[in-house]
Amino acid sequence: MSFSFGKNFRISIFGQSHSKEIGVVIDGLKAGYRINYSLIKENLMRRRPGKNSISSPRKENDEFEIVSGEVDGISCEAPLCIKIKNKDQKSSDYDNIIDRPRPSHADYPAFIKYNSHNDIRGGGSFSGRMTAPLVIAGSIAEDILREKNIRIFSRIKSIKDIEDKKLEYKDLELESLEYLKKKDFPVIDDDAGDEMIKLIEEYREKKDSLGGLVEVFVLGMPVGVGEPFFDSLESVIAKGVFSIPSVKGLEFGEGFNSAKMTGSTHNDPYIVKNGRVITKTNHHGGIIGGLSTSMPIYYTVAIKPTSSIGIIQDTISLKNLSNEKLLIEGRHDPCIVPRALVAIEMISAICILDLLMEFEK
Amino acid sequence: MSFSFGKNFRISIFGQSHSKEIGVVIDGLKAGYRINYSLIKENLMRRRPGKNSISSPRKENDEFEIVSGEVDGISCEAPLCIKIKNKDQKSSDYDNIIDRPRPSHADYPAFIKYNSHNDIRGGGSFSGRMTAPLVIAGSIAEDILREKNIRIFSRIKSIKDIEDKKLEYKDLELESLEYLKKKDFPVIDDDAGDEMIKLIEEYREKKDSLGGLVEVFVLGMPVGVGEPFFDSLESVIAKGVFSIPSVKGLEFGEGFNSAKMTGSTHNDPYIVKNGRVITKTNHHGGIIGGLSTSMPIYYTVAIKPTSSIGIIQDTISLKNLSNEKLLIEGRHDPCIVPRALVAIEMISAICILDLLMEFEK
Amino acid sequence: MSFSFGKNFRISIFGQSHSKEIGVVIDGLKAGYRINYSLIKENLMRRRPGKNSISSPRKENDEFEIVSGEVDGISCEAPLCIKIKNKDQKSSDYDNIIDRPRPSHADYPAFIKYNSHNDIRGGGSFSGRMTAPLVIAGSIAEDILREKNIRIFSRIKSIKDIEDKKLEYKDLELESLEYLKKKDFPVIDDDAGDEMIKLIEEYREKKDSLGGLVEVFVLGMPVGVGEPFFDSLESVIAKGVFSIPSVKGLEFGEGFNSAKMTGSTHNDPYIVKNGRVITKTNHHGGIIGGLSTSMPIYYTVAIKPTSSIGIIQDTISLKNLSNEKLLIEGRHDPCIVPRALVAIEMISAICILDLLMEFEK
Amino acid sequence: MSFSFGKNFRISIFGQSHSKEIGVVIDGLKAGYRINYSLIKENLMRRRPGKNSISSPRKENDEFEIVSGEVDGISCEAPLCIKIKNKDQKSSDYDNIIDRPRPSHADYPAFIKYNSHNDIRGGGSFSGRMTAPLVIAGSIAEDILREKNIRIFSRIKSIKDIEDKKLEYKDLELESLEYLKKKDFPVIDDDAGDEMIKLIEEYREKKDSLGGLVEVFVLGMPVGVGEPFFDSLESVIAKGVFSIPSVKGLEFGEGFNSAKMTGSTHNDPYIVKNGRVITKTNHHGGIIGGLSTSMPIYYTVAIKPTSSIGIIQDTISLKNLSNEKLLIEGRHDPCIVPRALVAIEMISAICILDLLMEFEK
Repeated sequence: MSFSFGKNFRISIFGQSHSKEIGVVIDGLKAGYRINYSLIKENLMRRRPGKNSISSPRKENDEFEIVSGEVDGISCEAPLCIKIKNKDQKSSDYDNIIDRPRPSHADYPAFIKYNSHNDIRGGGSFSGRMTAPLVIAGSIAEDILREKNIRIFSRIKSIKDIEDKKLEYKDLELESLEYLKKKDFPVIDDDAGDEMIKLIEEYREKKDSLGGLVEVFVLGMPVGVGEPFFDSLESVIAKGVFSIPSVKGLEFGEGFNSAKMTGSTHNDPYIVKNGRVITKTNHHGGIIGGLSTSMPIYYTVAIKPTSSIGIIQDTISLKNLSNEKLLIEGRHDPCIVPRALVAIEMISAICILDLLMEFEK
Repeated sequence: MSFSFGKNFRISIFGQSHSKEIGVVIDGLKAGYRINYSLIKENLMRRRPGKNSISSPRKENDEFEIVSGEVDGISCEAPLCIKIKNKDQKSSDYDNIIDRPRPSHADYPAFIKYNSHNDIRGGGSFSGRMTAPLVIAGSIAEDILREKNIRIFSRIKSIKDIEDKKLEYKDLELESLEYLKKKDFPVIDDDAGDEMIKLIEEYREKKDSLGGLVEVFVLGMPVGVGEPFFDSLESVIAKGVFSIPSVKGLEFGEGFNSAKMTGSTHNDPYIVKNGRVITKTNHHGGIIGGLSTSMPIYYTVAIKPTSSIGIIQDTISLKNLSNEKLLIEGRHDPCIVPRALVAIEMISAICILDLLMEFEK
Repeated sequence: MSFSFGKNFRISIFGQSHSKEIGVVIDGLKAGYRINYSLIKENLMRRRPGKNSISSPRKENDEFEIVSGEVDGISCEAPLCIKIKNKDQKSSDYDNIIDRPRPSHADYPAFIKYNSHNDIRGGGSFSGRMTAPLVIAGSIAEDILREKNIRIFSRIKSIKDIEDKKLEYKDLELESLEYLKKKDFPVIDDDAGDEMIKLIEEYREKKDSLGGLVEVFVLGMPVGVGEPFFDSLESVIAKGVFSIPSVKGLEFGEGFNSAKMTGSTHNDPYIVKNGRVITKTNHHGGIIGGLSTSMPIYYTVAIKPTSSIGIIQDTISLKNLSNEKLLIEGRHDPCIVPRALVAIEMISAICILDLLMEFEK
Repeated sequence: MSFSFGKNFRISIFGQSHSKEIGVVIDGLKAGYRINYSLIKENLMRRRPGKNSISSPRKENDEFEIVSGEVDGISCEAPLCIKIKNKDQKSSDYDNIIDRPRPSHADYPAFIKYNSHNDIRGGGSFSGRMTAPLVIAGSIAEDILREKNIRIFSRIKSIKDIEDKKLEYKDLELESLEYLKKKDFPVIDDDAGDEMIKLIEEYREKKDSLGGLVEVFVLGMPVGVGEPFFDSLESVIAKGVFSIPSVKGLEFGEGFNSAKMTGSTHNDPYIVKNGRVITKTNHHGGIIGGLSTSMPIYYTVAIKPTSSIGIIQDTISLKNLSNEKLLIEGRHDPCIVPRALVAIEMISAICILDLLMEFEK
């Protein structure tokens, strides 16, 4: 296991879907930081299931408590420990899956790896529930970055084949993206968003599920953040983002499209504008050589369709090594993209802050 | 800076494009390992420029020397240090770029980050030259994995719009991919390969450059390798792969395509076949929940077109903060994909071995 | 701050003297370990204040709760988080010391380092209270080591000038030391122990305090544990032991006495006895070249007298930078040695297990 | 193995006594640092054997070469790699010890640990030779600290029973210790020094060896350096110091003597003097609660007598598991203290700088 992350802003998360508590210990925060409780609350609210027709109706307790590391809401010399109590949940929904691994869930490899000692209730620590402590830690990172005028936004770029608006990535401005934080379904083009929601509802009816793309923007970065060779900005973000359950792809700037371009069309010429060095275009996505260039950073994350579906699937019996059928009961998100978005945004804040702290040394 | 990688098989690389020596220190290798010199040599040869019409005619010295950590070719209790001497190279090619950062190279952010103290000769430590020590360390990792019947292969999946053959990812077999290691231009469909080569030659003539996709296969993995939450198999590979210069995208299994699929089509049902648990399909790419499933692992890496092109480009003068023109002289790869492929394969071997050592604890 | 320790058995402690909760997150424990609740309880009991005439009459809550990482008492794939709730404690005892740093406490350097944001209640995270989570983690380490027949014992070697019995360090046996765990005041010679207790009581009356020496024994180690150069057995134990508040010295084997010996008297000749390689003498203390030799390991730890005393002391006002007097109120241990012993034993178990896991890779 | 050290100023050493090269890679140095070649040379000279009657007449090559990480003597963005070529040395001196482990050397535990694959020539990586790269890295750390007016000195405090002058540890001043760096045999009282030298020569004649104490002073530290809980100033220095071969004990401030003191005599009252907060006495040795107090730091290190002596010793045959005699041929230091002192001073510089970089974040 490896539940710790970061070199400067170091987090250790703990918990499982059905453990008594889940939480995070943050080591490396400076003493004297005033904790922004309402930002934590807002981000937990954004991540929360059960808030609308396209997320799981399952209710989760998201009331967090800070049990160490602060005095009167200001960080002290000790690590912050912030936790959420898990509600008592019926384990019965999961009883029949002990022996029958759910396709595309971690059940089977975890059963083998942990010699059957993995917590199977709700997916144990493989559960999306584990992103709640990440959201807490990420909110603190986001708040600290905000004080330095570094902002992280994200949008749903597509659901299945329906795409949100195309953007000019060299012209992104703080103000123009701020409202994404307030939206339940954060897209730029609301018509596209409505179509996406309709499609998700349609697949929920079919008891099937959908995937999609999330795009992240980081604005306000100074030049030179990132620690090549191995802690390049891309490397650190990639390590963080691929920790989020359901992520299957990541591209920076033009990404996969750059593979089809030529040097003469992909290269971004430098120009001086109002005394500031910028690039004419921003195919590079704000990162060159693993370092920030001060142009807007953008990257896209591919999320697979939710693995839990309400349709009978083929699987095996682990005990009998026989082929079997499985119907997963319970309440599931027909599309995890809107909730994964928050986790991706938050781990991004953690990655960026960690490298920024190294940069500022 | 951060030139170290790995928790169990720990490497520290050193050097710059024009430093006296470049090399790697490997800490964590067991005493008693017989060093496979010829595999290191072969992989360095595969990575080497100047070997054909589609790579830079620049010659590099690739003769390595092991200066510590072994007795009579067998690893001892001390770290291996393996180095390559850099040939004396004319620095003159780079004289005019001191002041004029090359578009899409690290010149500009590095100049700012290091307060003008970065080594500008040949790109300093941002040079692709730094992948030579990675290839050395990766060859040792590859050799150790091979003893455990774990093999890593890779192919050029596409150059610009030309694609290599489609594959059935559930049926990949060791034997069928072995020959990729021997090929100068490792594709499965040689006709497609010939077309790609022709296209690269065409762009070399135009003094322009091309990008492409590399696909990596890992075969023979046991079930359960990977350390969630933050050292999932995908996270660790992603951190490694995004350290390689020019990489802009990475997807595992169906990757970006999975975002367009539905749960019912993307999920991979388990079946028992000849007493072994496999999945009917392999959309997941051999990794679920950050753990290997024993199905073939495959992932695709997007490589941008070489940033150095022989066409006049816009840039700035760092001294005068004025807009200027730049013509990059010198010899460059019109397409770095065939050489980046080796670096990606080698860092993959390092990542896999590092997690396997954790797994075997 | 840096509240994490270990490479394989990784612990992160959290809390302060007066935070809501204190605890530890353990990352790296294998799934399937049955938690030994009673050993944790016993060790917490051994460490606890208020149990006799020579410790602080202050009561602490030591009831621990495991909130994640287990199912039915058996470790799963997630980190263990174990916590203790702090009782509501009057902060009033500490009110007058906000401005007047207590001599030989961390108050003054912490005030400067944390820019006055350190938690001054009860010494914050500099409190001996922080050793309670260490005892929890150490108990788990001790339990795992015990299954491998590696045992760690410790005794009070001296209080002020009164010394416990001299030992032959080459002949230590498991059985002969087992009873030390059961003793409130763990010495070998009870007459010496009684004298020590009398002396402590005497100094408690005087409102003064005493220091002493703790000796640790590690028996049953295989040959070769330790990872030179920098993670030698001595280096890792030293890092752990010097983290414990009040520790000011550490010596292995003959230690400081070895500096007065000659090679011919200090060297320990090897002999074969009953087919097993041992040394005739054990001046080296079971460790040579940073590696265990399988001879009994022993080391001695110097503990300074408790800094909190009931006598008026000179100090300053931080606000006025004026010279002032200070009388520390409250209940304090006249001698912390018997309680520090448990923390030292427990951090030793953590260090040994961490290196043993590396050894067993 | 674990040949890396440090979190901010990160070093990886490589080599063995008889490997082709030994050296160090330094990762974390800021670009723009002008390398102080003469300080490296001076410190290597201080450490070097063969310079007088009381050290081994063995000659070592100490000419270092910087092979990466700098341009024209100024550090760049890449790690510094600095190496020393080992001279061809006769291995024959060691031929008879392959099978007969030398008492109190690492031969036996290393043979078992590395399954006979340890490099036995000259002690392999357990050789004091490995402190040469440490001296190189430490010289760079010392130089950087010097720019911040932090100085590290050390003296021989005793050889066997002969002691150097007693000091008042609260009154140490930079100027008064500077000359220790220039001395071949760094004591404060030269008469005591002459006696020590005579004693060492006497034991050299007897083919026996001696140990002694080294004392280190760190002056000019700001208040608050150190990262409790686990990276306290004492913990980090202890980890570093116990990595140096032959070290068997370490005490800070009054150290072992504090165990015999009372709170009222050991506590150091604060006073304001010339507007600066100091302590009246300095029993604490400049560190409280793991943090620097700005008072002079001092600590004492116990060095065992050189294990290689010219007297016949008892040992075993590893092959036959029989009891045997051994006479170690070759040239050895009759007392390693004067040379170990330099290594201890240099690793101290590395530890202090590493924590200072954390402090300055």
